[in-house]
Amino acid sequence: MTTSHALRLPSGPVDLSTLPTDATPGFDGDKEEGEQALLEMGAELAELQERLFAERTTGSSRNVLLVLQGMDTSGKGGVLRHTVGLVDPQGVRITSFKAPTEEEKRHDFLWRIRAALPGPGYIGVFDRSHYEDVLVVRVHGLAEPAEIERRYDAINAFEAELVESGSTLVKCMLHISAAEQKERLLARLDDPTKYWKFNPRDVDERAQWPAYRTAYETALERTSTAAAPWHVIPSDKKWFRNLAVGGLLLEALRGLDLRWPEADFDVAEQQRRLADEAPVG
Amino acid sequence: MTTSHALRLPSGPVDLSTLPTDATPGFDGDKEEGEQALLEMGAELAELQERLFAERTTGSSRNVLLVLQGMDTSGKGGVLRHTVGLVDPQGVRITSFKAPTEEEKRHDFLWRIRAALPGPGYIGVFDRSHYEDVLVVRVHGLAEPAEIERRYDAINAFEAELVESGSTLVKCMLHISAAEQKERLLARLDDPTKYWKFNPRDVDERAQWPAYRTAYETALERTSTAAAPWHVIPSDKKWFRNLAVGGLLLEALRGLDLRWPEADFDVAEQQRRLADEAPVG
Repeated sequence: MTTSHALRLPSGPVDLSTLPTDATPGFDGDKEEGEQALLEMGAELAELQERLFAERTTGSSRNVLLVLQGMDTSGKGGVLRHTVGLVDPQGVRITSFKAPTEEEKRHDFLWRIRAALPGPGYIGVFDRSHYEDVLVVRVHGLAEPAEIERRYDAINAFEAELVESGSTLVKCMLHISAAEQKERLLARLDDPTKYWKFNPRDVDERAQWPAYRTAYETALERTSTAAAPWHVIPSDKKWFRNLAVGGLLLEALRGLDLRWPEADFDVAEQQRRLADEAPVG
Repeated sequence: MTTSHALRLPSGPVDLSTLPTDATPGFDGDKEEGEQALLEMGAELAELQERLFAERTTGSSRNVLLVLQGMDTSGKGGVLRHTVGLVDPQGVRITSFKAPTEEEKRHDFLWRIRAALPGPGYIGVFDRSHYEDVLVVRVHGLAEPAEIERRYDAINAFEAELVESGSTLVKCMLHISAAEQKERLLARLDDPTKYWKFNPRDVDERAQWPAYRTAYETALERTSTAAAPWHVIPSDKKWFRNLAVGGLLLEALRGLDLRWPEADFDVAEQQRRLADEAPVG
């Protein structure tokens, strides 16, 4: 199945126009097979997530942070529903980052991000993230160029610190074509159950597509590190996008070599206590 | 399927020994049929949850708060996984309340509860809750009797305020027998993948079973209000417990008469804008 090898961004300059939006690297099957493959991944994903959750009882600080970035309609919500939805919601912490509040604006851009980091044992998911602070902020000139320049390094230092303290980062850019976005916006306009997802500003933003592409290219190039590499997920096919992120999450969890915690008590003694107890109830 | 009618706590004095732990009120089928019925509920639960999530974009403040209480091993985690796990995790906020921190202890008992309330459009789930402050606190004498007495009224005022401000509360006490708890603790000791869920203190706590029963009876009697009634879920059968909570959640969502939001823009105009736009990308 899809491995990080096929999706990991190579180092060096990034040209998104050369990276496919509709391919299925690492997977030979069709949509039906892809959906089936994702469901089959569910049991292992769920077990490894539970082992991670269990591990926190031993004092381990390890966790996983899935960062989802992409243009409007690229499918961050779909990944949450179909991929993240495969594991026990008890062990997941999802944060959707919107435009910063007035209070958030008074702090460094990483302030609200730190507050949303997953605790030990959790899979944290960022639906948008600190990357918005070098993407929409850059496209709309919401910060000075020198400040944006500073942020790439600040992000790398921040993510290195997270990895050092026990986080495994899985950074995914959901890559769609402008034509696919147009189809998806039109589909929302064709379906009254999807009107609520549509905002006329989404159409305005399409005029900024080249500026976003440039901003993404710079961000990907500057912040894809050995400790926290970027993956660019061809996302015109929704089923492949869900499967690919699932594969990356699974690979990250497998890489942690998670074991069920040993008992920190005498099992036989506790069995005896229960067997010998006075009547209860 | 299971209706709140069959599970809702009647008003008046509560005697938990008369309420079944292993019955399946409102459902005639067996385990296999019960598990199937829960899965079949999934599509409607997921759609209504999405409608609730969509509604928040209209400025509505409505949300749902599922409160799960029960003795150790009663299955709060199982409900989270099997029932809450049926809906999009994006629209769910789960909070597991542990023993209060030093900071939390310096505040009123409802302080940390308020901080965890679901926002508009969300299904909040409390795995344990403010009820611990009249349960474990009472059993272990962690507060003065007068303070505990005050808390029943404080809880009713708090919950009335929540309902007034747009919350629908679904309060479930997962009711198991002492014998069933013993089986479940022994099962954990028989399975190395479950050692992490076991704590020798759980065995000590069994000696307090009658005190917990009394504390639950008082809490249920004093805080089952018309605005926020309690439901006592027979929970010796895990499949019925999951199904019953699902049924209550479904009934709560149905009761909100949720509609997809109308478009707050001119649909045809936006279609034209996309059709007529200059080439993008």
